[in-house]
Amino acid sequence: MRPSGRAPDALRAVSLQPGVARHAEGSCLIRMGVTEVLCTASVEARVPPFLRGKGEGWVTAEYGMLPRATHTRGDREAARGKQSGRTQEIQRLIGRALRAVVDRKAMGEMAVVLDCDVITADGGTRCAAITGAWVALHQAFEHCVLKNVISGNPLRDQVAAISCGLWQGTPVLDLDYAEDSAADADSNFVLTGKGGIVEVQGTAEGAPFSEAQLLELMALARQGTDALFAAQRRAIGR
Amino acid sequence: MRPSGRAPDALRAVSLQPGVARHAEGSCLIRMGVTEVLCTASVEARVPPFLRGKGEGWVTAEYGMLPRATHTRGDREAARGKQSGRTQEIQRLIGRALRAVVDRKAMGEMAVVLDCDVITADGGTRCAAITGAWVALHQAFEHCVLKNVISGNPLRDQVAAISCGLWQGTPVLDLDYAEDSAADADSNFVLTGKGGIVEVQGTAEGAPFSEAQLLELMALARQGTDALFAAQRRAIGR
Amino acid sequence: MRPSGRAPDALRAVSLQPGVARHAEGSCLIRMGVTEVLCTASVEARVPPFLRGKGEGWVTAEYGMLPRATHTRGDREAARGKQSGRTQEIQRLIGRALRAVVDRKAMGEMAVVLDCDVITADGGTRCAAITGAWVALHQAFEHCVLKNVISGNPLRDQVAAISCGLWQGTPVLDLDYAEDSAADADSNFVLTGKGGIVEVQGTAEGAPFSEAQLLELMALARQGTDALFAAQRRAIGR
Amino acid sequence: MRPSGRAPDALRAVSLQPGVARHAEGSCLIRMGVTEVLCTASVEARVPPFLRGKGEGWVTAEYGMLPRATHTRGDREAARGKQSGRTQEIQRLIGRALRAVVDRKAMGEMAVVLDCDVITADGGTRCAAITGAWVALHQAFEHCVLKNVISGNPLRDQVAAISCGLWQGTPVLDLDYAEDSAADADSNFVLTGKGGIVEVQGTAEGAPFSEAQLLELMALARQGTDALFAAQRRAIGR
Amino acid sequence: MRPSGRAPDALRAVSLQPGVARHAEGSCLIRMGVTEVLCTASVEARVPPFLRGKGEGWVTAEYGMLPRATHTRGDREAARGKQSGRTQEIQRLIGRALRAVVDRKAMGEMAVVLDCDVITADGGTRCAAITGAWVALHQAFEHCVLKNVISGNPLRDQVAAISCGLWQGTPVLDLDYAEDSAADADSNFVLTGKGGIVEVQGTAEGAPFSEAQLLELMALARQGTDALFAAQRRAIGR
Amino acid sequence: MRPSGRAPDALRAVSLQPGVARHAEGSCLIRMGVTEVLCTASVEARVPPFLRGKGEGWVTAEYGMLPRATHTRGDREAARGKQSGRTQEIQRLIGRALRAVVDRKAMGEMAVVLDCDVITADGGTRCAAITGAWVALHQAFEHCVLKNVISGNPLRDQVAAISCGLWQGTPVLDLDYAEDSAADADSNFVLTGKGGIVEVQGTAEGAPFSEAQLLELMALARQGTDALFAAQRRAIGR
Repeated sequence: MRPSGRAPDALRAVSLQPGVARHAEGSCLIRMGVTEVLCTASVEARVPPFLRGKGEGWVTAEYGMLPRATHTRGDREAARGKQSGRTQEIQRLIGRALRAVVDRKAMGEMAVVLDCDVITADGGTRCAAITGAWVALHQAFEHCVLKNVISGNPLRDQVAAISCGLWQGTPVLDLDYAEDSAADADSNFVLTGKGGIVEVQGTAEGAPFSEAQLLELMALARQGTDALFAAQRRAIGR
Repeated sequence: MRPSGRAPDALRAVSLQPGVARHAEGSCLIRMGVTEVLCTASVEARVPPFLRGKGEGWVTAEYGMLPRATHTRGDREAARGKQSGRTQEIQRLIGRALRAVVDRKAMGEMAVVLDCDVITADGGTRCAAITGAWVALHQAFEHCVLKNVISGNPLRDQVAAISCGLWQGTPVLDLDYAEDSAADADSNFVLTGKGGIVEVQGTAEGAPFSEAQLLELMALARQGTDALFAAQRRAIGR
Repeated sequence: MRPSGRAPDALRAVSLQPGVARHAEGSCLIRMGVTEVLCTASVEARVPPFLRGKGEGWVTAEYGMLPRATHTRGDREAARGKQSGRTQEIQRLIGRALRAVVDRKAMGEMAVVLDCDVITADGGTRCAAITGAWVALHQAFEHCVLKNVISGNPLRDQVAAISCGLWQGTPVLDLDYAEDSAADADSNFVLTGKGGIVEVQGTAEGAPFSEAQLLELMALARQGTDALFAAQRRAIGR
Repeated sequence: MRPSGRAPDALRAVSLQPGVARHAEGSCLIRMGVTEVLCTASVEARVPPFLRGKGEGWVTAEYGMLPRATHTRGDREAARGKQSGRTQEIQRLIGRALRAVVDRKAMGEMAVVLDCDVITADGGTRCAAITGAWVALHQAFEHCVLKNVISGNPLRDQVAAISCGLWQGTPVLDLDYAEDSAADADSNFVLTGKGGIVEVQGTAEGAPFSEAQLLELMALARQGTDALFAAQRRAIGR
Repeated sequence: MRPSGRAPDALRAVSLQPGVARHAEGSCLIRMGVTEVLCTASVEARVPPFLRGKGEGWVTAEYGMLPRATHTRGDREAARGKQSGRTQEIQRLIGRALRAVVDRKAMGEMAVVLDCDVITADGGTRCAAITGAWVALHQAFEHCVLKNVISGNPLRDQVAAISCGLWQGTPVLDLDYAEDSAADADSNFVLTGKGGIVEVQGTAEGAPFSEAQLLELMALARQGTDALFAAQRRAIGR
Repeated sequence: MRPSGRAPDALRAVSLQPGVARHAEGSCLIRMGVTEVLCTASVEARVPPFLRGKGEGWVTAEYGMLPRATHTRGDREAARGKQSGRTQEIQRLIGRALRAVVDRKAMGEMAVVLDCDVITADGGTRCAAITGAWVALHQAFEHCVLKNVISGNPLRDQVAAISCGLWQGTPVLDLDYAEDSAADADSNFVLTGKGGIVEVQGTAEGAPFSEAQLLELMALARQGTDALFAAQRRAIGR
């Protein structure tokens, strides 16, 4: 039995609450069990320098964690004066994941910044951030369509992410913090609604794992993201 | 009539929700109208170097704002690599305010860090942070009493803060963002439950103001903090 | 008797020496007892980005302290790589204080940077900086009038600042370092020549103070700034 | 035909030159075609704070690129004052990869820092760094055995890495810079000599890819790393 | 005729005023014409880590320039967040120059920090800093002797510095800013009272210069430092 | 006998290998004994702001050291977040040295950045960097002539640098690390092919040195640079 007592293929309770941020063009508060991430989408009228004059848009992400989102208080990155390597790695991943399902030419020269801030951390924050950011981004694009900034929503597919791992040799879905700390392997899958792979990251924490195990993890991930895609569709009212 | 339509001496709707943070020893989500600040209190077993071996405790605060807490997105301080002067000024104020009602000798050599993170900003965030942080700190100290870390709660009084301003010459209580931007004078009062003044900060934004006006603002502030003290007591169950 | 032996309402010896800086458009070396602050005003032909094209000017301040201005050597902020929260708080205060008496529209699109560098510190450096910076700014504006950059001096009033505190319950004026360290309350008043309040900052260091005490402190402050206004007028030759 | 003209499963010319660094305990200059990375292994007698007293060792990595390793000159990170997110992501990956094949308990309390500096960049620098760092680490451990610092070499397996991608739908091995820029998907595989997976990173650059394609990429990667393992063994004289 | 109208071998008016800093163990305000540098010497009871337990002392220097010491205002290094390369180069030079005449074993394990802050700049600030710092250091050591911290003054010789340059081919002594900007070669000589060379730095600004010219510059420098040594002796009352 | 066993006037084995950097417009790998510095010259189409519109070019340099270029590993400056004072001092010297032999008007508005990265350090790295950078710069200018960016090579002379020192009173040429650490005086001479002095830096490490000794060092340096000029000419095929 895995530490959380869940079945190997059981997701934690998922909740996607869109429109929670008063000022943002799009937003979503995602909860995966105890993990809680606030995702906001901010529309900006200009693109970064490397895209100016090219007629396409940009989607990027920033990630942060409140100092006491975790069991013991972590340093505030603003006070330390720099973002950790982990933070930068995660926000780069979120940005890539979302861009993979956006038709940037259909955006025109505008940008959306996705801010994913972890309110409570209990494992799987980067995956939750991706899944929630998609809802926030969808809402922001709908806002732009309503305001006639763009003629149609440039999202071409859904995207969601889930972690899987090997716990004492058994593949398990959606690791919480305690499970993640004890897992032999940790992997994150970013998948699209149409079944494509946007990103696979698998890391052996202890002994290396096998190709067969990677495939088992991926099968679990598909099952998990199918549930997340359904939750996203409910969140945007489809 | 002031922009918000409230009576000059009307507070916004106040809500203090203790215990919202899963991992922190103490916490409080405070809402003053649309403004929303998450305050957590983290207990640490050691004091800063300048207090080591002196047998007293320390209480300090850090303040932050989610990038899209505001009408238009602000830079993430962690990404910019430093905290703004405004941020530092506010977190120093919060720390001083709370230390004013703590018997630091009764704490022994331990520290509490108060993290005040603005989820939604609509004026008065520093005052809300102080009022909410008191509840979080109270809860953290109660936790320490329960754990026998300290023999009694070292809080000696309540402390709360409220802003007042001159709007077209009229003193008004508890400015929201629109009012704050248009006010002739802006002031913050940090008062104790027993009626003492911990901190007064009054700033003329346009024309200088008079002593009589400062006294009118202070009278309003007392009325406001009285309501906040009652709300704090309800929040801690007294 | 207060530590300095001065009467409760006695200022330290004040000296304002204008024109001391060889290269600056305006300057003033202010001494309040042992405290010594060099204030220079530098005229720049351009305004910060947020004011461009608006036809108004800007006045801002920076504050620093020589490493051995104090009893024991402090770190050099340039070597540490950042300005402390205290430094930022003070320089923001100086800038607000001076802007309160400047008609920024009458400046046109130009800026003045006030550098206030503490040569010797013995309490009250931020107040001395404000009082001295007014003289430097006056001189810089007169220089601009002579050069036909502006048609008249955009200063609309005098501004000066003084600290007051409660020493063993007694309100005392113009605290030196020893008094400041031992005071129960510490306050800074920024007042105008016409009697208006630009900024009030009162902080309880020990027990909270009362409204009556705040009013006593303010009365002392008025007495102190009246003397400072006279000294400023002498310094500019009026 | 892929841009380089190589067969889809053809590695670039590989060269592993051990012992090139005069002062380091271990080193290896790896060339994969034009890509050239200097890997040094520095033995240090102490472990990071989180491991003190635990009786195990540590292996970590730092990555850098000479400013003109690339087609156009890049900023020097030391001059800019911080390492990019990409740099941090890569050096974290290299460290994890090497730790996966080290018996850290067998090291005792010592650390090895692997510095991987790119002299010439033409795609695949992070993979080359891992492959070369293994040789440098092996040499450093042998050095420690000779010096009687440890009783046996704590390396338990080989580790090497290679990139694969989809070029116009075809899986191709070992992308150079031109191929990497034009690929639909980019993946890095870190594999062990015994066939285990240490890390898989697959990223869709354009359209998402399928599970079948991921497996084809992995098959190519195995073929590639088999050749690299052989080259490593030759480099260490086995 | 050189720009300043001085004879080629004429120093500017030199003034060395010891004891000007209220709090420092040693200090000297040096003026060379318009150039004005405040030098303070701060005694600290501990040495840097690399000297701990070795029974010798340390002398180091920091250099800064007030933002409006110059004709046009320069950025404040504390605000920019780092010291320029020029600043670092100068403070390293000052430290080396003073250490050359100190018997560090005779100091025991204590350190002196020399802060050299330029109040007004008109060329030759680094040389003035060295010459003035020697007086400050002498005073600080005398203070330590009086306090019985050390048994005798560890200064073994005098040290002073002067700049020389080639102005339209003619060697000239003690360049002011205007001369320095127009010189073909710029050199700084750090010499000891006994005639030794501690540091020579000669730089061609335009055309390279010859060995004969270097010797002419050095002869001028000796003449200049002889006058400075006399001024130092007067300043310390010998 | 000096530590290296070389005759007092013997250079180490010198090797200048031009064109080693795949992507750079000019490059040279210089070896002086064990010391090894990779110099690249990168041509950029724009000049720094202070030169815009003035019709002249710019030549600048950056210097770095691989962490394990030295006997014991040094911190990576990019990871520490700033360049040391030593690094900045050296890169400023390299830039000045090269600019001294370039006709910047003949360059037109373009810039060349010289990156000098130390692969292996054994004393004399700054001098090797200057000598090698000249070859890289020459190659880059020849490249620009071939591309018709400039009509002729703007180099007007050769420049090379060498260190000399006093070892137990004897002047010795080209110090290696062991000699440098034990020398009484350390000097660097930057000389031109036509015999001019571009820069002289002499520093007493222990006792001050005399003018006669400085002249002996300079005579050795001329002998050394004559050999280096010949090596440079061979390297560029003259």
